[in-house]
Amino acid sequence: MKNTFVTKERLEAIAAEWPTPFYLYDEKGIRENARRLRQAFAWNPGFREYFAVKATPTPGILKLLYEEGCGCDVSSMAELLLAERCGITGKDLMFSSNNTPADEFRKAAELGAIINLDDLTLVDFLKESIGYIPETVCCRYNPGGTFTLGATGEGFQVMDTPAEAKYGMTRPQLSEAVRKLADMGAKSFGLHAFLASNTLSNEYFPTLAQILCRLAAELRQETGVNITFLNLSGGIGVPYRPEQTESDIFAIGEGVRRACENAGLDNVAIYAELGRYMLAPYGALITRATHEKHIYKEYIGVDACACNLMRPAMYGAYHHITVMGKEHAPCDHLYDVVGGLCENNDKFAIDRPLPEIVPGDLLFIHDTGAHGFSMGYNYNGKLRSAELLLKEDGSVELLRRAETMDDYFRTVVW
Amino acid sequence: MKNTFVTKERLEAIAAEWPTPFYLYDEKGIRENARRLRQAFAWNPGFREYFAVKATPTPGILKLLYEEGCGCDVSSMAELLLAERCGITGKDLMFSSNNTPADEFRKAAELGAIINLDDLTLVDFLKESIGYIPETVCCRYNPGGTFTLGATGEGFQVMDTPAEAKYGMTRPQLSEAVRKLADMGAKSFGLHAFLASNTLSNEYFPTLAQILCRLAAELRQETGVNITFLNLSGGIGVPYRPEQTESDIFAIGEGVRRACENAGLDNVAIYAELGRYMLAPYGALITRATHEKHIYKEYIGVDACACNLMRPAMYGAYHHITVMGKEHAPCDHLYDVVGGLCENNDKFAIDRPLPEIVPGDLLFIHDTGAHGFSMGYNYNGKLRSAELLLKEDGSVELLRRAETMDDYFRTVVW
Repeated sequence: MKNTFVTKERLEAIAAEWPTPFYLYDEKGIRENARRLRQAFAWNPGFREYFAVKATPTPGILKLLYEEGCGCDVSSMAELLLAERCGITGKDLMFSSNNTPADEFRKAAELGAIINLDDLTLVDFLKESIGYIPETVCCRYNPGGTFTLGATGEGFQVMDTPAEAKYGMTRPQLSEAVRKLADMGAKSFGLHAFLASNTLSNEYFPTLAQILCRLAAELRQETGVNITFLNLSGGIGVPYRPEQTESDIFAIGEGVRRACENAGLDNVAIYAELGRYMLAPYGALITRATHEKHIYKEYIGVDACACNLMRPAMYGAYHHITVMGKEHAPCDHLYDVVGGLCENNDKFAIDRPLPEIVPGDLLFIHDTGAHGFSMGYNYNGKLRSAELLLKEDGSVELLRRAETMDDYFRTVVW
Repeated sequence: MKNTFVTKERLEAIAAEWPTPFYLYDEKGIRENARRLRQAFAWNPGFREYFAVKATPTPGILKLLYEEGCGCDVSSMAELLLAERCGITGKDLMFSSNNTPADEFRKAAELGAIINLDDLTLVDFLKESIGYIPETVCCRYNPGGTFTLGATGEGFQVMDTPAEAKYGMTRPQLSEAVRKLADMGAKSFGLHAFLASNTLSNEYFPTLAQILCRLAAELRQETGVNITFLNLSGGIGVPYRPEQTESDIFAIGEGVRRACENAGLDNVAIYAELGRYMLAPYGALITRATHEKHIYKEYIGVDACACNLMRPAMYGAYHHITVMGKEHAPCDHLYDVVGGLCENNDKFAIDRPLPEIVPGDLLFIHDTGAHGFSMGYNYNGKLRSAELLLKEDGSVELLRRAETMDDYFRTVVW
């Protein structure tokens, strides 16, 4: 069982004012989690979380996290402009992009963002784009091969294939990039890598820190440059399934501390670009059951669809569902919970044991605070929903209004 | 090799006016194909293609197809409003939706659209929603089980699993729905089914027609109702890969004719709701190579991304790529062609043999006229592109302008 952060009564009251479907975020959960993260890395004076804006590109969320000490990891012109308009600029911005257009490098430089270079070819391209090389710059590393961690009888806790990923530089390229950047005027370097997505292992960040510590030592020796931060990027996941155990952020922080200590890198700052970990559990897609259908399977139709939450359709992702008010009812029905798209992957749940659902029931789709709204689309002419913040004082704040037909037709030439 | 419908010189001239990426549609191809379809079914006086608006929900395209005799298959409020504003209403509209909200039934009824009922429960729901049952109504059938066609040594030409699909009614439900609707005042009935997607077999439509003819005969006998049309829906595909053979629309038309003749159903009208077949080959996503990257694989970065064309990311779909001006160059390079999303599935091609690509080259991504623009999204703050029509006289018409940052931020509460 997973806890909702709102009662049925409160949710019905909210839904009376803001028609379903909508996203609801939990200010209390977001703040407490951000504080836990900061505590877990308090041993590192330079620690900084740059929230991965792509996860939830909503000003109200960015400002809230900024108050908790988080900067922004941005990856595109729109995200740069979004951060700027939220008053988040300078070293509070990490520009981690790939296949980057020149105008985005220019905007990032104008805002004073730290620029994270994804590729060796971007060294010259950055110089051409902005006319100089910034004093502080970050390089992204891709070790290639397969990354595995924590092999057990049941398989690997973490397994991913950096060799198939489009990101980062090879080891020799990294040396070349660092040397070149130093020659061109860079004084302070960061190293970045992202080797696995949505891990629950407490060992992923420490292992990555070890890898980057070793790399930092090698590069210092080879090139004499000053490596001032390690950007561990994202990858700390959340337990989408109720039977999964969440990771222990204090164990993770302590593991990274030990990795740095063992490498003798006491004064390097640790950066992260967490998105999912910061937001996923503290956001829910709220939708109302509207139809039931009994054919070869039992279907519950709801008023949200894959356009509001694409992860099940694109990744086959599991999102837990609580039927509000039936938290303790037996899960003695097997349902496909579906939207109204003319597309058969439009299913929030397949063969899911749930309590009996009747039209009118409110469904709380868990762990959708990250990569939920942000991956919304308009297939079949469906509109994207509003985003609401449930504040610590119990009131509700509109962070983004629902799309209208005028929005949908806005770019059309009639 | 696949032919582009535009030369490199013309495309460079277009791109000089409309910055890449953009969608380009080919008026000539669209019209000729629509005429072929009409000819192939000319034996059936009542034949009607209702273009599946979800494939390409763009007024300029709907109007062009309407001129060629096609109505619209719409599935949502936005699509109903879109058709209305294009002047396409009444029996020119087929409302084929599922999990349908009451206000959409009301709008469909107001416009005089033919309503296609996806489920038995919708019979009462429709009556409650609009206050009456229309004289003409269609019911969607789902036979369950697995649908297979044309077994060969290499497998099945067509295979799909209706039992896993959320659409349609079971056979007993269909009888009940028809009886109920007749009791409630319906006079003229249609039968609809969709059993397989993107088939290249010339046997799919004839086989489906056979199934629906048998069903029509049974229902007439059982209930005495008048079945006036069979809606074969979509399912005729296009050869995305150059080695695939396109289907023969005349063989398909003739096969459907024979099926009706054999069943003694000479005066039943045949309807279709083709989307992909009508548009996919006559639209291309045009993008420019901007970066190259040499790590564990060779990458070409382009200025479009999965936000402009989701099919490769969501379905692993193949889309052929022509490098403009290098149509006859040897395909002696192996590339991943990628966009700039921070998402590793943002790849238009993986390990694709292509001629050498350099930044500046224009890429023509084939067969993206359907389910291309319409599945666009804004992940990472990427904007959706313009849609252009290459007219028969060689001029270019803007069908939809590119999104701007103002559009992207329009719903935000700052």
